[in-house]
Amino acid sequence: MRRNERGDGTKEERGRDRMREKVSRYMEKNGMLKAGQRVVVGLSGGADSVCLLSLLSDMRSSLSIRLRAVHVHHGLRGQEADRDADFSRELCRKLDIPFILKMENAHQEAQNRRISEEEAGRLLRYEAFEQEAARWEEEEREQEGAALPVRIAVAHHGDDSAETILYHLFRGSGLRGLAGIAPVRGRVIRPLLCVSRQEILEYLREEGLSYVTDSTNLLNDYTRNRLRNQILPMAVQEINRGAVEHILRAGEIIGEADQFFRERAGKFLKKEGIWKESCLEKSRMLAVPVSALGSLAHIEQGYVIREAFSELGWPLRNIDASHIESILSLLDGRTGAGADLPGGVRAERVYENLVLKKKERAAAKDGLPRLSMEVIPRENQAEIPKNRYTKWFDYDKIKDTLSVRYRLPGDYITLKGGGRKSLKSLFIDEKIPREMRGSIPLLAEGNHVLWMIGGRISEYYKVTEQTKRILKVHLDGGTNCG
Amino acid sequence: MRRNERGDGTKEERGRDRMREKVSRYMEKNGMLKAGQRVVVGLSGGADSVCLLSLLSDMRSSLSIRLRAVHVHHGLRGQEADRDADFSRELCRKLDIPFILKMENAHQEAQNRRISEEEAGRLLRYEAFEQEAARWEEEEREQEGAALPVRIAVAHHGDDSAETILYHLFRGSGLRGLAGIAPVRGRVIRPLLCVSRQEILEYLREEGLSYVTDSTNLLNDYTRNRLRNQILPMAVQEINRGAVEHILRAGEIIGEADQFFRERAGKFLKKEGIWKESCLEKSRMLAVPVSALGSLAHIEQGYVIREAFSELGWPLRNIDASHIESILSLLDGRTGAGADLPGGVRAERVYENLVLKKKERAAAKDGLPRLSMEVIPRENQAEIPKNRYTKWFDYDKIKDTLSVRYRLPGDYITLKGGGRKSLKSLFIDEKIPREMRGSIPLLAEGNHVLWMIGGRISEYYKVTEQTKRILKVHLDGGTNCG
Repeated sequence: MRRNERGDGTKEERGRDRMREKVSRYMEKNGMLKAGQRVVVGLSGGADSVCLLSLLSDMRSSLSIRLRAVHVHHGLRGQEADRDADFSRELCRKLDIPFILKMENAHQEAQNRRISEEEAGRLLRYEAFEQEAARWEEEEREQEGAALPVRIAVAHHGDDSAETILYHLFRGSGLRGLAGIAPVRGRVIRPLLCVSRQEILEYLREEGLSYVTDSTNLLNDYTRNRLRNQILPMAVQEINRGAVEHILRAGEIIGEADQFFRERAGKFLKKEGIWKESCLEKSRMLAVPVSALGSLAHIEQGYVIREAFSELGWPLRNIDASHIESILSLLDGRTGAGADLPGGVRAERVYENLVLKKKERAAAKDGLPRLSMEVIPRENQAEIPKNRYTKWFDYDKIKDTLSVRYRLPGDYITLKGGGRKSLKSLFIDEKIPREMRGSIPLLAEGNHVLWMIGGRISEYYKVTEQTKRILKVHLDGGTNCG
Repeated sequence: MRRNERGDGTKEERGRDRMREKVSRYMEKNGMLKAGQRVVVGLSGGADSVCLLSLLSDMRSSLSIRLRAVHVHHGLRGQEADRDADFSRELCRKLDIPFILKMENAHQEAQNRRISEEEAGRLLRYEAFEQEAARWEEEEREQEGAALPVRIAVAHHGDDSAETILYHLFRGSGLRGLAGIAPVRGRVIRPLLCVSRQEILEYLREEGLSYVTDSTNLLNDYTRNRLRNQILPMAVQEINRGAVEHILRAGEIIGEADQFFRERAGKFLKKEGIWKESCLEKSRMLAVPVSALGSLAHIEQGYVIREAFSELGWPLRNIDASHIESILSLLDGRTGAGADLPGGVRAERVYENLVLKKKERAAAKDGLPRLSMEVIPRENQAEIPKNRYTKWFDYDKIKDTLSVRYRLPGDYITLKGGGRKSLKSLFIDEKIPREMRGSIPLLAEGNHVLWMIGGRISEYYKVTEQTKRILKVHLDGGTNCG
């Protein structure tokens, strides 16, 4: 046991203990690991990941965790990369940690995905870690029936996060980007965010641990390097010695605020959002009552819109503050006012709702649903089924050919009491958003609509005591959703 | 009218129009001015304030506002300062704006207040503006019976605010500091926060307006100058051309978040806070139910504590995140757990409440209240007064000398039914916070407490049908509060 329990060791020993305690506390505070959990550690062989592996290695018995190290060879940098892989394998042998080497081709990947080699490398690394984590979980499940989720530990440190905060601050960002690097996201944990690069180097020196240096590291990414090598050091030297810690602390508070607003927006949408999903369309649409959204603070409104995009599975990449404002301006608009947004999204004021939906594509016109029909005698079944996707009609009232189609001018439906109502005014009465109207499939006899498929049917065709034969119509695939 | 209404003027004219529109929109968005309002404009004669005065001067008729310019001569910089005052007076003459010159002595002020001359100058300027605004309001009120509040316009621009954000980011700050310079605070409005220093200089050039340069401006405040002249330009040149705008936009969002949390904390305290104010003490204390505070998000809890300090009128200057955490840790503490904070504030867990109060000073022991007493016959007044600060006692039950004092061991009170209860257990039953117990003044006969002054009285001494003579006791000065 290397830890000095009497607290009277050398300066180096105390330094190492401080580092271990600092990282332990940070991990605990952020709920990074549970006893018995498995951790895949990303190991490049560089200073940061060697420090991370060493610290986690020390914690193995006290936390009863198990480790595997994954080294990704990017197929770049020739012999230097081979050297890094060898170094990493040797370190794991010494620490008695299983070592997994993943051979990748970042150059090829970059070409395939049309991204930079650095970005491709990053994606390949996380994919490799995720793969190994999933595989390990599977092994555990087979052996023990159940498994805690396997975590992935990566070695980002405080300077990385401070750099990220400045990067986003200077290039434009909402609160989320200004929060810096997340300590926990999904499986991924980042135990070293609480320490600086300097502390890592001191720890390695005191532990007598060596590490490799990636010769391309100092060359890549011009912007990042300006931040790392010029702006951050200037802030520390000229403005405040504790600048990095202060930036990180600001990031923490901003992160808390961001999370607060996101959770609140999620709850709001769960309570107030009207989600319309049709089997006939892949994308969903969302309506939010203007009164509810309008009663929120402006910052909450923005979060609700962003959260809605997330929940609808629409990318937020190209949505900036001006788009959010153009959506929110509809709160003061009249019905029909709308805003077109990137990604084919349209926001529209529809009566007392704000509606978000993907614009109809021409292709949608073709995707009419398939109906299966069957004629059955009345006496066979007394109870009319209350089923959204199976409807009965009085077969003997149908005189002409039935068609499945979208609306046409002159379409109408029969109301209780026998009056006719045009489909158009019915849509308006039922506050069906204009942009949905064209994509509601209909079962019709001429202009007389039997069924707004998935919705109401015409009174005229309803099964009554007098009905002799029943037309049973079922929407194929219609039972599993809605 | 200089504005080009046909939109086909020269490049310069369009540039000037853009500037006016940008500033107008910003003022409107932030509710800076109402029609008919008076504005005191701070005018140093430098580029920023000349631009501000010129823009507001142009808006006089369209917004029907009235202006006065105030120039503060700091008594520093000899002839240069006289030149600036002359320049400012001349500009106001040209623009037909009343000019007020305030002569101050920033050097003396700095010595008196033990602050830097720059800081003294800043304070003197705002005081001069406030004075003039108050005076103008008074004039209006005398002439017209009522007056809109007079505003004070100062010339901070976007770069100033971006600089402030970085300054706070590097030196440590909560969300409020990271929001940058407030567009509106109290009377003060800052119409130029939406434009850059560069835009101001271009506007002045296009308008053919000259301005003075303070030769000490470029020398003062080392830290600020590093930010202004090195870090911000580097961010713009090396990281992102729009860095200043992006920083300002981030500040706006952070400001919205900050305001949201502050308002929310204020509402929380209004609903849940139990304010105890005694005439006998200058400071108030606050109790907050642990269950209510504990149900909030961590970031909200911090805001509640800060808001409580504000409302109690206690300075937040020396309260940092670690103090807030030590207070919040009491949510998990047992009764009696406490934390001592700067400024003599103590936070304590008292049963199901978190209590904030100033620690008793030794001096408080001396500040016993004065009681006036009077013996009156029973028949004179049938109705026993229900008054917190005037109490009646059965005079004939008092056998010994009465004293006004704080609690002593063995003190007791008589309950309904005649049982005695020790003052100590009464305090516990009534959940009177421990730290208040020693400062509750008592009226006592030996160990028998007649009156916990301001609170309950002993049953034993209560006036009954049998009472012949009444001792009427009144707490001097006790009617105006509580």
